[in-house]
Amino acid sequence: MPLREFVLPLVSSRTLCHVLGMALLVGLYSCIPVAVEFSPYAFFDGPSEFHAVLSLILGWLLVFRTNTAYNRWWEARTLWGGLVNASRNLSLKFTKLGNFETRELRRVQQLLIAFPVALRCHLRSEKPAIGLRDLDYEELETIHLPQGIAQEIYSILGAAKRAGRIDGEEMRAIDVEALRLMDIAGGCERILKTRIVKSYRIFARQCVLIFLASLPWGIVQDFRFWTIPLTILTAYFMLGLEVVAEHVEEPFGYDEDDLDLDGLCQTIALSVNEAFLHLGQL
Amino acid sequence: MPLREFVLPLVSSRTLCHVLGMALLVGLYSCIPVAVEFSPYAFFDGPSEFHAVLSLILGWLLVFRTNTAYNRWWEARTLWGGLVNASRNLSLKFTKLGNFETRELRRVQQLLIAFPVALRCHLRSEKPAIGLRDLDYEELETIHLPQGIAQEIYSILGAAKRAGRIDGEEMRAIDVEALRLMDIAGGCERILKTRIVKSYRIFARQCVLIFLASLPWGIVQDFRFWTIPLTILTAYFMLGLEVVAEHVEEPFGYDEDDLDLDGLCQTIALSVNEAFLHLGQL
Amino acid sequence: MPLREFVLPLVSSRTLCHVLGMALLVGLYSCIPVAVEFSPYAFFDGPSEFHAVLSLILGWLLVFRTNTAYNRWWEARTLWGGLVNASRNLSLKFTKLGNFETRELRRVQQLLIAFPVALRCHLRSEKPAIGLRDLDYEELETIHLPQGIAQEIYSILGAAKRAGRIDGEEMRAIDVEALRLMDIAGGCERILKTRIVKSYRIFARQCVLIFLASLPWGIVQDFRFWTIPLTILTAYFMLGLEVVAEHVEEPFGYDEDDLDLDGLCQTIALSVNEAFLHLGQL
Amino acid sequence: MPLREFVLPLVSSRTLCHVLGMALLVGLYSCIPVAVEFSPYAFFDGPSEFHAVLSLILGWLLVFRTNTAYNRWWEARTLWGGLVNASRNLSLKFTKLGNFETRELRRVQQLLIAFPVALRCHLRSEKPAIGLRDLDYEELETIHLPQGIAQEIYSILGAAKRAGRIDGEEMRAIDVEALRLMDIAGGCERILKTRIVKSYRIFARQCVLIFLASLPWGIVQDFRFWTIPLTILTAYFMLGLEVVAEHVEEPFGYDEDDLDLDGLCQTIALSVNEAFLHLGQL
Amino acid sequence: MPLREFVLPLVSSRTLCHVLGMALLVGLYSCIPVAVEFSPYAFFDGPSEFHAVLSLILGWLLVFRTNTAYNRWWEARTLWGGLVNASRNLSLKFTKLGNFETRELRRVQQLLIAFPVALRCHLRSEKPAIGLRDLDYEELETIHLPQGIAQEIYSILGAAKRAGRIDGEEMRAIDVEALRLMDIAGGCERILKTRIVKSYRIFARQCVLIFLASLPWGIVQDFRFWTIPLTILTAYFMLGLEVVAEHVEEPFGYDEDDLDLDGLCQTIALSVNEAFLHLGQL
Repeated sequence: MPLREFVLPLVSSRTLCHVLGMALLVGLYSCIPVAVEFSPYAFFDGPSEFHAVLSLILGWLLVFRTNTAYNRWWEARTLWGGLVNASRNLSLKFTKLGNFETRELRRVQQLLIAFPVALRCHLRSEKPAIGLRDLDYEELETIHLPQGIAQEIYSILGAAKRAGRIDGEEMRAIDVEALRLMDIAGGCERILKTRIVKSYRIFARQCVLIFLASLPWGIVQDFRFWTIPLTILTAYFMLGLEVVAEHVEEPFGYDEDDLDLDGLCQTIALSVNEAFLHLGQL
Repeated sequence: MPLREFVLPLVSSRTLCHVLGMALLVGLYSCIPVAVEFSPYAFFDGPSEFHAVLSLILGWLLVFRTNTAYNRWWEARTLWGGLVNASRNLSLKFTKLGNFETRELRRVQQLLIAFPVALRCHLRSEKPAIGLRDLDYEELETIHLPQGIAQEIYSILGAAKRAGRIDGEEMRAIDVEALRLMDIAGGCERILKTRIVKSYRIFARQCVLIFLASLPWGIVQDFRFWTIPLTILTAYFMLGLEVVAEHVEEPFGYDEDDLDLDGLCQTIALSVNEAFLHLGQL
Repeated sequence: MPLREFVLPLVSSRTLCHVLGMALLVGLYSCIPVAVEFSPYAFFDGPSEFHAVLSLILGWLLVFRTNTAYNRWWEARTLWGGLVNASRNLSLKFTKLGNFETRELRRVQQLLIAFPVALRCHLRSEKPAIGLRDLDYEELETIHLPQGIAQEIYSILGAAKRAGRIDGEEMRAIDVEALRLMDIAGGCERILKTRIVKSYRIFARQCVLIFLASLPWGIVQDFRFWTIPLTILTAYFMLGLEVVAEHVEEPFGYDEDDLDLDGLCQTIALSVNEAFLHLGQL
Repeated sequence: MPLREFVLPLVSSRTLCHVLGMALLVGLYSCIPVAVEFSPYAFFDGPSEFHAVLSLILGWLLVFRTNTAYNRWWEARTLWGGLVNASRNLSLKFTKLGNFETRELRRVQQLLIAFPVALRCHLRSEKPAIGLRDLDYEELETIHLPQGIAQEIYSILGAAKRAGRIDGEEMRAIDVEALRLMDIAGGCERILKTRIVKSYRIFARQCVLIFLASLPWGIVQDFRFWTIPLTILTAYFMLGLEVVAEHVEEPFGYDEDDLDLDGLCQTIALSVNEAFLHLGQL
Repeated sequence: MPLREFVLPLVSSRTLCHVLGMALLVGLYSCIPVAVEFSPYAFFDGPSEFHAVLSLILGWLLVFRTNTAYNRWWEARTLWGGLVNASRNLSLKFTKLGNFETRELRRVQQLLIAFPVALRCHLRSEKPAIGLRDLDYEELETIHLPQGIAQEIYSILGAAKRAGRIDGEEMRAIDVEALRLMDIAGGCERILKTRIVKSYRIFARQCVLIFLASLPWGIVQDFRFWTIPLTILTAYFMLGLEVVAEHVEEPFGYDEDDLDLDGLCQTIALSVNEAFLHLGQL
């Protein structure tokens, strides 16, 4: 790995710029203990060992917190990856099993492409996007659009079953994929609505603040002027872990760390179209 | 993230106020070693290094414990998220598959909305709530209300199957969702009734108490008057981890950290109603 | 949380009393280096820093070990929770699906209630308990009683299928729950018979022993008389983690940390009886 | 384990040679603080304790990061292991269940052997390999070759079902394995396209760089000339963890740590051929 | 827990004897720095603090590594536990569902008992064992014996289905267990063939070696003669973690830490025989 590649991306993260700003503020604050130390009113005379221990325990807490936040993020990614899989398998099964009418297949194609778009808009609390225009989604008369789409897929499935265009086994083979749609939507809502336990989060943040507020007073005797850069460095480290965890916890927005939901919607649209195009050529 | 948002929530947690009270008590206690140190009867003269090491090991134990407790909490949340998914899929399948009678569908709608309410009351050992009034739940003649509701859903399913309104495949497609109801109820009961291993919990608490009791004696020589604020800080940190873990371990109550069961019941009611409303309009 | 509740349970654990005894023995041993230090033959003069580092690494090893042991315990609990779920779902399905004869249903009820009792006795290597009397289990002519019970359930299922009292789909719906019975029994046997890797366990214990044997010699110079209480404290902590892990590793016995298998058997009996009582009233 | 085996592999890793080069560069840089220290312009006089604490927290972060990267790698391996299982089970079921025509079976054999090769090429963004020549894959007219293959398998399955050569149950028994093909392909794409959260990765790297840049200035007073080898050692350790994690994160390439995809493709080809050869002999 | 039980097993592990030997070699090597220190050519004068920090980070790395290795081992154990479950459930279903001929059942009994033995031999690259004699496995004309056995089970299943001795639903009920056979075989092969990432493993070992080589030079000033026993102790600890991890990584051999595959094969044989004996008595 060339060294250049190692250094370049260091300057491109907006999140980390915020952290730097906050760390500099803490550094400004740390000038107070330094000034007091050099004034005739210096009063603290304990060793700096205490903050060493505290910073270690705090370090674990933050590393664990970051890890938990990352696991949520990865679970969200896995759910959307499962949506790609479910959409592909549904496409394959609708086109290759049973004897669906072309009209039904076209509608299923529309619905499968619309589902991830609708879910994305739902998770971002946005109005349904342009990609849904073909859907006549207003006719669905539904508040929870992804549920409305899943409902119409089951509606087509049930009708085809009753009309004998598919038999029970084919219905079940499609059902095992179709039920994943709402499971995935529900899983995403769970991650969206339930953040990490409130006390846990507040507690971690309190500890960081108390630690940073007391740190310069504790080490100023040993480090004198160097207290300021060292406080900034520690603040950057501690706040960085905390803020990155905070950002990663909400994976469905527009942040640079958030999932590329638009890209995933396109992947699904491409896969679905390919499966149905093939049918069109037969 | 604005700084304001970072500071504001620090003062709003009731759990952490309790912790602060206990930390102050420990601080009061730490005045004794300080007084002894400044009296002519000072007797301890070992270095404070010992407590540094002990506090590190204790720190891990507590961080692990908090993590375990959080995992339970998240499992409980996932189970209730699964209940949302199961209710939605059941709604879709009951309305779109087979030929259920309207009377049966209305009853299923009632039962699906009642199930999370009944489970919530069961987990909180409360009398069934107002939302269950429509259910005539007293006619169910059952002690374990969630089981009674699941039983009636299977009763409807079995009757429709015998009457030929659904065939075997449709019954199976509904069954795979319906069996999740009791699995979820059983999972919640497991979390409710089985806390973290008793010895493990008592041991962690003992270690915290012994550590806090001996801490001020160990560091008073090095830190003198500063022993008191440092003991309070450490006590707040250690007790905070312990108490937050304790609270998070029981996710079904009314604490601020507990799951928003009422909100989840409403979400389910909304989703179920939407699925069945659509049917009503056909 | 009241302070009283925090302190009370500290004195009630039998496991931890054993640990205390062992820690006191180590304390007795630590009198030797203290005596040597104050005699004219004092010979060790290295700093105590070495033991600090060693105790930290040992601390992780033990915390990890405790965590692994706890995960086993929780897996055992989850398996038994799954048994509750499987028993309930089997009860619902046997009573509500198909057209089983009353004679068959009564036998299934007996078998479902007997299965957890038989599994409990099997895991504890005990003679089958009183609760199994009704079963005429001796007629089962089987060594592995849980397997014998599962076999008879499948026997009833197969017979009803061949006689046309249930069709294939209903058989499958019951099968997906019934096969969990032996999966759970097998999972419990796995936990019972396979403990944590032998070398790993011996190695952890050796390290604790070597550490405790060398600790008082290493710190006696710095801590003098205080070596004795500090050694006891450390021994209590280290041995406590080790012994708690040891106990938690075997979750099926009669220890205070073991699973409440009797309570779980009763819960299952209650649930099964309720489901079958309801049928009786129809 | 003989000592020779312990030492030999130390010199054979290309990845670690790169790390060594980078560590030597850091060592070169560390000559500056040493030179300054021995010049009359020495200005820093804080203790080296600060870097000890920082390196510990950084150590966790890196160990966690390595662990996360390793879990991704193992998940990728598990997915490919699942592909081996799915291919074997599909072979067994296609040959032993139903009455497929020899023509269909030959085509399925080709497709099953081609699927892993196509997936491998897809994950490496390569042109389809020689092993696919027999497939006439250009006739598949598909961009996503693995999807095209899965589609043709379902096509054969659907046709055989409609022609009555297999019944619904056999179709389902094959379907439960066939749907794993696209699930595995989707899972691999997820690992390929989504790396660990960007902020998290940049942050870890920044911290390593800042730490290494400040380390020699912090310890030069205590260690003097020894600063240079110690900095090289620490740099090797820190950069090693970071670079190994970086490499392990991308498991589908040609690196020495990457999965042996070619070997897995051969294993699948062997297993599939064996299952179909057996049929040929009947 | 009696003290005797605590001490006894300490001397019985062959693996740990090897570790002890290697630790003594390191101790021999540490005599060099001690000799130099007491010679007039002593040249190193840095504090021992550096090695304290390094040993902590190394300690995590090794504890994590041990943990990962242990998880592999436990996964292997879980797979074999799943084989016990699958064998039992297959026995129950073959004997109780459908109308298999006695000839078929006897063959299935042979095959179910032979499968774990064949898998064990396959994982150990051994010739098929005596227990397989009855199988006439040479007639299977297969290289991958477990696959050959699974194939014959599916062969019997497919034939019985075509002959109408079982219907589709019963075939599916047996299929859900039978497909686990090859999944388990594939899972075991995955664990056997893919060890922990090569760079990761080499890197951990390099760090241990470099650390142990530099340790006595770093602490000889502070600990003088005591350097030798302390180096041995540390070497035993570090090498112990590394070597135990190494051993545990390969769970299918004949080491004392390896799985008791022979015992598991016997358990399966017993369970299968019991299920089929019962049938024989009818």
